[in-house]
Amino acid sequence: MDEIKIFSPATVANVSCAFDILGFALDEVGDQMIFRKTREKGLKIEMKDSMNLPTDPLQNVAGVVGLAMLEKADPDFGILMEITKGIKPGSGIGSSAASAAGAAFGINKILNEVFSINELVEFAMIGEALASGVSHADNVAPALYGGFTLIRSLHPLDIIPLSAPKNLYVSILHPLIEVKTKNARRILKHSVSLKDAVVQWANIAGLISGLLLEDYDLIGRSMVDTIVEPVRSILIPLFDELKKAALDAGALGSGISGSGPSVFALSKDYDKANQIAEAMKGVYQNSGIDFEIHVSGINNQGMRIIRD
Amino acid sequence: MDEIKIFSPATVANVSCAFDILGFALDEVGDQMIFRKTREKGLKIEMKDSMNLPTDPLQNVAGVVGLAMLEKADPDFGILMEITKGIKPGSGIGSSAASAAGAAFGINKILNEVFSINELVEFAMIGEALASGVSHADNVAPALYGGFTLIRSLHPLDIIPLSAPKNLYVSILHPLIEVKTKNARRILKHSVSLKDAVVQWANIAGLISGLLLEDYDLIGRSMVDTIVEPVRSILIPLFDELKKAALDAGALGSGISGSGPSVFALSKDYDKANQIAEAMKGVYQNSGIDFEIHVSGINNQGMRIIRD
Repeated sequence: MDEIKIFSPATVANVSCAFDILGFALDEVGDQMIFRKTREKGLKIEMKDSMNLPTDPLQNVAGVVGLAMLEKADPDFGILMEITKGIKPGSGIGSSAASAAGAAFGINKILNEVFSINELVEFAMIGEALASGVSHADNVAPALYGGFTLIRSLHPLDIIPLSAPKNLYVSILHPLIEVKTKNARRILKHSVSLKDAVVQWANIAGLISGLLLEDYDLIGRSMVDTIVEPVRSILIPLFDELKKAALDAGALGSGISGSGPSVFALSKDYDKANQIAEAMKGVYQNSGIDFEIHVSGINNQGMRIIRD
Repeated sequence: MDEIKIFSPATVANVSCAFDILGFALDEVGDQMIFRKTREKGLKIEMKDSMNLPTDPLQNVAGVVGLAMLEKADPDFGILMEITKGIKPGSGIGSSAASAAGAAFGINKILNEVFSINELVEFAMIGEALASGVSHADNVAPALYGGFTLIRSLHPLDIIPLSAPKNLYVSILHPLIEVKTKNARRILKHSVSLKDAVVQWANIAGLISGLLLEDYDLIGRSMVDTIVEPVRSILIPLFDELKKAALDAGALGSGISGSGPSVFALSKDYDKANQIAEAMKGVYQNSGIDFEIHVSGINNQGMRIIRD
């Protein structure tokens, strides 16, 4: 394959109680990336948006992924990536993951699919490490697999794809403020009481059961995070009000997307998802803080090929 | 209904990583109980075995359950319970739960099913509180529901029945030593590191996924408990050797049943389950410690009516 254009989805990691082990992909929010075989060896990056991300592969999340793949595969050609970001960096909906996972997927296509999907996850994690200092998979795995993905273990990598229940939608409010993943991680407590941990894992078990049994009420009542959300939410202006507005508007549950600042809410109907987004917007519109709103279905496919 | 005879199953609670939130019921091990309407009001108990359990209802696990139900329902007749224990008290495979849940189920039949199944769980928990000082549902819920049951919350009670994968078997070695639930609870650490908690809930999510997706390998590799088992296993002689023998003989996974001293192992084939039981027996037979062995399928039905 000489050229391919793909859509690489935004993702929501953590998903309330399921801190560090679960994520899901979005259908309608993501980056577009073109990969083109070049005679000249090596990797070149062109950014086709106004987000001012570095084009030096060593400084670019997609770049470090591509360099590692080219070093491993050692092809007798090079690759040009054209990236049009649809996800703002620092949003908490997997901007770096979309770049990293998209690069892994697209470059693998140009390399005639020499790597397995789990190898692509491992390559994409190199990009995550550059972006946040932590090599994690809870955004890149759902971006590549689609649906909800459980990361049972990182070493060895053990990813369990869980397809999403039908008609599940997400509403997201992204406050345009910066919450560094590093800082959101630093404020976490290092230990938890066994009692709180048991409550958390009961809810995680309920959430996984709800997803697999397509029990929407169970999904909703399991979306309770008593460990991470109370700490991290202090970094997000009006978090409690946003969550309350989403729940009052009929959301199944709501929480912090990744390490924030985006706040997401799940619902089982597209109209409802739009009403929830409106309710969240209502909380922010007089706050003086700029924001973006996204409403999307869950992407059960992962990367989408736009043209090949 | 004037009389009913039932089989009330043994149960395995905790199930490795899923401390305090999961249990499953056994098909071939349990108590038999007869319930008979009497003209005289009140509750009478006859024990039909040699285990010397008290027949005073206030001192008997099934008794306190029955008294609470009769007080609530206030029928114009009484009930006689004849109990033939098949499960030794203190085994760690839900002896008190079988009595408590069996009483709740049987008495409800004589009362023409005035109580819902979740009310039966609540009544049965009164018996558990008498037996161990802690009102928990991870044995009585699977005894009543059958299969695997997730207890997402106790207050309010939220039980999620998860039917067991086909052809799942359990092998159990019960060392005839006493491990008091109170003591097994007392030695637990009160706090855990967030890192360990995340590992545990990743495995719990894997175990639930494995059960619902009928992925036996996933069930097996998720049966890792880094929090409770390392502490409690010191109360069980030769625990590490038992577990290794079970795994070497082909078990999917192995752990402490409830708070011990029984040790269980899961497998996906009845012959294999017997081989595993033999291997566990091999560890104990020259130990000088008396023991019992059980091999059973998973009970997906809960209480079984033998005669009505």
